[in-house]
Amino acid sequence: MAGLVLALDVMDGEKAVEIAEKVACYVDYIKVNYPLVLSSGIGIVEELSTHSPVIADFKIADIPYTSSLVAKIAFERGAKAVICHGFAGSDMLKAVLDVALSYDGEVYVVTELSSPGGEEYLQKFSESIAMLAKSIGCHGLIAPATRPERIKELKKIAGELKIFSPGVGVQGGDIRRAVESGADYIIVGRVIYNSSDPEQEAYRIRKILDELHER
Amino acid sequence: MAGLVLALDVMDGEKAVEIAEKVACYVDYIKVNYPLVLSSGIGIVEELSTHSPVIADFKIADIPYTSSLVAKIAFERGAKAVICHGFAGSDMLKAVLDVALSYDGEVYVVTELSSPGGEEYLQKFSESIAMLAKSIGCHGLIAPATRPERIKELKKIAGELKIFSPGVGVQGGDIRRAVESGADYIIVGRVIYNSSDPEQEAYRIRKILDELHER
Repeated sequence: MAGLVLALDVMDGEKAVEIAEKVACYVDYIKVNYPLVLSSGIGIVEELSTHSPVIADFKIADIPYTSSLVAKIAFERGAKAVICHGFAGSDMLKAVLDVALSYDGEVYVVTELSSPGGEEYLQKFSESIAMLAKSIGCHGLIAPATRPERIKELKKIAGELKIFSPGVGVQGGDIRRAVESGADYIIVGRVIYNSSDPEQEAYRIRKILDELHER
Repeated sequence: MAGLVLALDVMDGEKAVEIAEKVACYVDYIKVNYPLVLSSGIGIVEELSTHSPVIADFKIADIPYTSSLVAKIAFERGAKAVICHGFAGSDMLKAVLDVALSYDGEVYVVTELSSPGGEEYLQKFSESIAMLAKSIGCHGLIAPATRPERIKELKKIAGELKIFSPGVGVQGGDIRRAVESGADYIIVGRVIYNSSDPEQEAYRIRKILDELHER
């Protein structure tokens, strides 16, 4: 059954923790990005980890030395996984994976961004990046729910790598199409955290995933 | 005359401020990256800004919405410029530039990373990214001192965009070759901040840049 990742892209640490508490029984992971971490400090990763496993969506894309330091900080604070950009090269992916494995952590690799600009450069070699991620031993791929036909293509390469699909909701991606195309986890942000009742919204999406599974 | 950027990649905020104070009269910018910012908090950008203008080297490479939030936080805390990855697409560059301009700030765009992995994907379209950065109105390019022949090629495209070249020192790049190839600023990290006398080391490099200029 496909899982649910909450992209907790609020800027207020207290609000983030409050939402994380409410939705914990419906989400598999909480994904945090830099706006929240910069606003409230890296300690937020530890706090949120007490509710759900945290994916540090730092889109790491630097030289190996710097990238491994960033990954180390994330795992040291209790993150379960980090997200990297494969286009930065195999040396960087290997450096980050080495750090991850020393913490029993995971590495997920962006194939192409869900935004329109993701088609300009990234899409040209997203299959190559997926193959690289797989050959190095990474654990997952990020593939856009806004382009389900791309999820299908990347799924063929992924093998045992889990596919996480962002872009559902405000960005226009559809849960059913993403899951039917091969997404193992859908990533939902604004639809849940901007809802007047995040718990109810997370429950509603979890139910859709359950129903898709039962078909 | 070529300028000097200190890549202040220490993890300890107090040490960072101490070094920044010492080298302030020899460096044009201080570049901060995530390891320092995550370890010591985003407030470090403000603190360092009192000594030299700060470049927030966040290698921004996300969807436009998230990227603009990251840029906003950096500028709000007094950064003079942010560094982005052009491969993420023109929509992201435009979104970050919009934020930068509203703070009278600047945007520098990575063409290819100075690490070996920079040749795997990034180098294939670094010229295209340079052209994109220029056409959108960004202010600078990051081009590797480890591959001075690439600086030369990118300089032909850059026009009025400033070229910043990292990879000098520990990564193997040579100051003279980088400057002679067209770098407007060289970025030096470990050679300065790991020195027993960072002030003396920054002075030594500044003198090399002065001498190159007088030739």
